[in-house]
Amino acid sequence: MNEFRLIEKLTRRIPADLREAAGLRDDTGILSGHRLITTDVIVDGVDFILRQTPPELIGRKAMAVNLSDIAAMGGIPEAYTVALGIPASVRSSWLERLYQGIVTWAKAYRLVCAGGDISKASQFFVSVTMTGKALAKPVLRSGARAGDWLGVTGKLGGSIYGHHLKFQPRVLEGQELARSGVSAMIDISDGFLQDLGHILTASQTGACIETENIPCSRAALKAARGDREKALIAALSDGEDFELLFCLAPAKKRMFERQWNKKFPQTPLSWVGRIEAKKGIRWAAGGQKRAAPRLVRKGYQHFV
Amino acid sequence: MNEFRLIEKLTRRIPADLREAAGLRDDTGILSGHRLITTDVIVDGVDFILRQTPPELIGRKAMAVNLSDIAAMGGIPEAYTVALGIPASVRSSWLERLYQGIVTWAKAYRLVCAGGDISKASQFFVSVTMTGKALAKPVLRSGARAGDWLGVTGKLGGSIYGHHLKFQPRVLEGQELARSGVSAMIDISDGFLQDLGHILTASQTGACIETENIPCSRAALKAARGDREKALIAALSDGEDFELLFCLAPAKKRMFERQWNKKFPQTPLSWVGRIEAKKGIRWAAGGQKRAAPRLVRKGYQHFV
Repeated sequence: MNEFRLIEKLTRRIPADLREAAGLRDDTGILSGHRLITTDVIVDGVDFILRQTPPELIGRKAMAVNLSDIAAMGGIPEAYTVALGIPASVRSSWLERLYQGIVTWAKAYRLVCAGGDISKASQFFVSVTMTGKALAKPVLRSGARAGDWLGVTGKLGGSIYGHHLKFQPRVLEGQELARSGVSAMIDISDGFLQDLGHILTASQTGACIETENIPCSRAALKAARGDREKALIAALSDGEDFELLFCLAPAKKRMFERQWNKKFPQTPLSWVGRIEAKKGIRWAAGGQKRAAPRLVRKGYQHFV
Repeated sequence: MNEFRLIEKLTRRIPADLREAAGLRDDTGILSGHRLITTDVIVDGVDFILRQTPPELIGRKAMAVNLSDIAAMGGIPEAYTVALGIPASVRSSWLERLYQGIVTWAKAYRLVCAGGDISKASQFFVSVTMTGKALAKPVLRSGARAGDWLGVTGKLGGSIYGHHLKFQPRVLEGQELARSGVSAMIDISDGFLQDLGHILTASQTGACIETENIPCSRAALKAARGDREKALIAALSDGEDFELLFCLAPAKKRMFERQWNKKFPQTPLSWVGRIEAKKGIRWAAGGQKRAAPRLVRKGYQHFV
């Protein structure tokens, strides 16, 4: 059973008024007062290989995946808690290095460490819960409207070659996007196409994707050895890019681009398609209709 | 290295202004606006035996340990997130039963499910993060003053025989205690003596304990086979009672008892000693000085 169906199944018996719909469908839950909360757990052998990864990068990733969720709501991160499962073989000096990775983010975004828990475990894991606050109104996945431009930050694909441990969560970019009035937003954790699917499903719309505008990462291009279609497929389906995918009404595009170039000259911005009323995805290359790329898989499944 | 020293070591490098002192010392962290947040993780083989425990009770415990932390601050629980590590051998029907245990509490206290995460794992674990709100001012561990009465709810010891999976977190009792103006409070998770130690250390005080007033649970008495001293030792040192231990100024005691008996006629309340200015613990039996009980261990260590 896939991750999404399992979550649906498990949370089905929660009475509707006790189910924070956004928290189960969007990147974070929304509590009263536009307060945001999100949890991510990363596990040795699933999200990283403990023996091959400097602990600073594991601590870094445990925080960054949550920061990315807050970013996708256009929120300001505020505080975090850390739950650790620690095998007997792990030394306290290794854990201190893990905490350095955590504290780096705490300092960068002025996040308050609000507590935590530790337990023995046979397999190392870190579960971080992060709270934040939406700027004005949290940006949901469900607001995309036909005609909206589809934009994406950064470059996509090949995250497995290192990016998934070292990415910069788009926290300030997410806040700027929220201020600019984007209609829907998500962070690309499951892969561009799968996360686009989440927006389209939530918004009950479709899209046309211009494949020539999909920004392929250097790692994806390198792994594809110059095969542009192969790199495209990686960019569309690889998980853990942690870039922001968003929708913007045409009337707001020009002003937005001007602001973006001023504030984030270093962060690539690509217009990769348009939202359409008709459900499903159409494909174009250079403005001409083209066949769908032959994806090996639709996106990354964290849980199979 | 013990749990408390490890946490101290790990969080040492967090700048003081980014360290929510209560969250690292008290039962929950305190965010702005008297908002509370707490995380507890429970792991198969450490906090329960998966093969021997109905999943409903595991879900129940995962929530109840957090509810108990909110209770110890005199708070109102509001929302929760759930992170699960799931081995391939666990079926979705088993997980649905686990969620029933979770949802039972959610319904009882009108808690909002605000999101979660699931991952593959070799060993099953559940990490719940819960938010809440303090009634007026959160009750800390550090407020005990010489002369205060030491009170405890319920009965102590022998939790391992079943209570640790079935206990009632003292949520409403905690709120009543906060309203009554208790000076310090903690939930007994590490064992009476160890948790009393946390209050005494935080408050820089000592205490005199009247052993004849320590309420021993039926399970502790049964396991001791009539040996009252053995049952006393269990009550003082066994972990996971999840009762509330609190301090109350003498002037407030009479009014408090009247209210308590009216509101919680079913919940035992025992006065087990007094806070004293002189550090350390003195022991009495029937008002007469006595030797310290010969404890096998000072309290339960979740992490050794």
